[in-house]
Amino acid sequence: MPKISHKGQQMPESPIRKLVPFAEAATRKGRKIYQLNIGQPDIKTPEVALDAVRNHDIEVLSYSHSAGFESYREKLAGYYQRSNLPVEKDDIIITTGGSEALLFAMGSITDPGDEVIIPEPFYANYNGFATASGVTIKPIQASIENNFALPPIAEFEKLITDKTKAILLCNPGNPTGYLYTKEEVKQLADLALKHDLFVLSDEVYREFAYDGAQHHSIMSLPELANNAIMVDSVSKRYSMCGARVGCLVSKNKEVIATAMKFAQARLSPPTFAQIASEAALDTPQSYFDDVIEQYTFRRNLLVEGLEKIEGVKVAKPKGAFYCIAELPVENADDFAKWLLESFEDGNETIMVAPAAGFYSTPNTGLNQVRIAYVLKKEDLERSIEILEKALKQYKQEN
Amino acid sequence: MPKISHKGQQMPESPIRKLVPFAEAATRKGRKIYQLNIGQPDIKTPEVALDAVRNHDIEVLSYSHSAGFESYREKLAGYYQRSNLPVEKDDIIITTGGSEALLFAMGSITDPGDEVIIPEPFYANYNGFATASGVTIKPIQASIENNFALPPIAEFEKLITDKTKAILLCNPGNPTGYLYTKEEVKQLADLALKHDLFVLSDEVYREFAYDGAQHHSIMSLPELANNAIMVDSVSKRYSMCGARVGCLVSKNKEVIATAMKFAQARLSPPTFAQIASEAALDTPQSYFDDVIEQYTFRRNLLVEGLEKIEGVKVAKPKGAFYCIAELPVENADDFAKWLLESFEDGNETIMVAPAAGFYSTPNTGLNQVRIAYVLKKEDLERSIEILEKALKQYKQEN
Repeated sequence: MPKISHKGQQMPESPIRKLVPFAEAATRKGRKIYQLNIGQPDIKTPEVALDAVRNHDIEVLSYSHSAGFESYREKLAGYYQRSNLPVEKDDIIITTGGSEALLFAMGSITDPGDEVIIPEPFYANYNGFATASGVTIKPIQASIENNFALPPIAEFEKLITDKTKAILLCNPGNPTGYLYTKEEVKQLADLALKHDLFVLSDEVYREFAYDGAQHHSIMSLPELANNAIMVDSVSKRYSMCGARVGCLVSKNKEVIATAMKFAQARLSPPTFAQIASEAALDTPQSYFDDVIEQYTFRRNLLVEGLEKIEGVKVAKPKGAFYCIAELPVENADDFAKWLLESFEDGNETIMVAPAAGFYSTPNTGLNQVRIAYVLKKEDLERSIEILEKALKQYKQEN
Repeated sequence: MPKISHKGQQMPESPIRKLVPFAEAATRKGRKIYQLNIGQPDIKTPEVALDAVRNHDIEVLSYSHSAGFESYREKLAGYYQRSNLPVEKDDIIITTGGSEALLFAMGSITDPGDEVIIPEPFYANYNGFATASGVTIKPIQASIENNFALPPIAEFEKLITDKTKAILLCNPGNPTGYLYTKEEVKQLADLALKHDLFVLSDEVYREFAYDGAQHHSIMSLPELANNAIMVDSVSKRYSMCGARVGCLVSKNKEVIATAMKFAQARLSPPTFAQIASEAALDTPQSYFDDVIEQYTFRRNLLVEGLEKIEGVKVAKPKGAFYCIAELPVENADDFAKWLLESFEDGNETIMVAPAAGFYSTPNTGLNQVRIAYVLKKEDLERSIEILEKALKQYKQEN
């Protein structure tokens, strides 16, 4: 029997998905599961996007331009311009989800053996994309004590070698919910300029900033034009995770030309999803106002609820819709499995994502979980109640 | 300014797309271009697929399963079973186009530095996927003299080293139109078993076999179950290139488990396109009968037309909708550019794909072009007429 690749063996299992078989088993037993493990919002997709697809007049569903519809890129550039970001249509390549934009960016700027510095905990699939690209992640630990703010620049500097190609950050952060300040973004930019590095900024949660805080995009710094690559997506902004449309944005012409070669090899991004995404740009501001109000409410509910549980420590998120909570357990992986396999309260339980998979340093974050506050009030309240009861019972049993 | 990667620099430009700027310039001059360069059929997409998308009742466009809708995989397995292929739903991972299936397969079975043997000329984007994966392609030249049949197995055997992981073939072939015989497929299978290699078979044109010839899938050989990986796509079968839905199929559980890790990292294939693809499986047989009749007619028209032009040699395709033609020019790349830049007949011209980009061996196929017979009768007739006139004028000028 032929052997699979070393790379394939090393590909990490998604920490968000690896509990799925246990959840399926629980579901088969008739158990109701509140899914706090995945960033799949319950928010309705804007009607204007869904209608555009309903009203399509396609006769031949043909390839689009490899960089995506020109009309969409034009309109999307306008969206960024309204946030005072100097983005033109030719700075944009439409991708199949933010995932593909990350893969194109990694392929364009790194070779196998190269290094990328990432503050951890970070979006777990960065591990998969790095493994697929043969890239080594150099993590810098951020701490729950200060809400996962940017670690000191001196820590970054210590890690820079001649193999370092980029600093990757997620802003606002998944899984931390941390929103980088203007000063933090500027510090990173200065560092990148000093060492001739790319800054790869995953800004898919850019609209999700709470308490009136402002999001500071990597594209807002003119001096960083040749170093900055932004990754974005419609998935969260319009609750269109299933569309699979994102984009790679850069003012660096060489980066765009290179990423275009990867884009041409896979022909084009999905057409129906582009129709939905282009139409979604007409979503009224009231939609976002409602969504932000909803998430702010949910965040407050969750954080206050978690803080009341004995032994639970939580970082208050300023953006996105996740938070990292430290639980009074030794191993959150075991606890998360136990929740699905052995616990129930009124035949209900919860599913959380063990946080260790969001760290690249081994044996880190073992007692932490990521909780996505993507459920409605009643479900979130019930989930907190279940967590409290479960922790009590778990303590007794262990 | 930070540097792009070595890999990015090496990524080949698509030979199908690199003439696009010249075509755009010609279009700006008001010139009409018959596009024979790209496999974008003019055939209408089945109504049943387009309607399914029109009638969607989605409220939250959420992620699907990373392997694709279970209902779709179930129904797709039934489609293969009707062709007597022993495919079950769990042998299938739905991908974003055949392209992503090829990338997942390469990632699962090869590491940087590994080798894959491919009969050339081959689908040009294999070069891009190989470069992106750090894989070296070892080409074996097939010849226009015998319609690009499988080269002798002894030639393959000569190329096998301890770095060889797979043989990749496209059946029926793009760009050759060659349909491998049962004996050829069996020979390759024996070779793969002898040397413990994977056979990666791109069968996206499986429905396009002419003159009553039968397609022999790599999945039809029980002894090859652990070695065979099939790549398929809805793009050509249902004229749904813009959907971006394909699949990776294998009975090898380790391959599926590994490819699933790549699939999970990118979350899910596009939802609207899966809706269309699942519905497309209900396309009536009459649709395919019409399509095959149409392509057979077009192929005959093209091949007979080309054979009448002085100095043109053509391989008669038995499948897919391409053919390779040898032209009485020294450099088909120059000629293809000249067709767009300097030639017109009644303000019309044609666009062809220079075949050198479909070879991995340098300076090969320089006087060949790939012609896609994806246009209707009148356009195809006119295209042949333009080619004949252009060749005459080109000869006079050069």
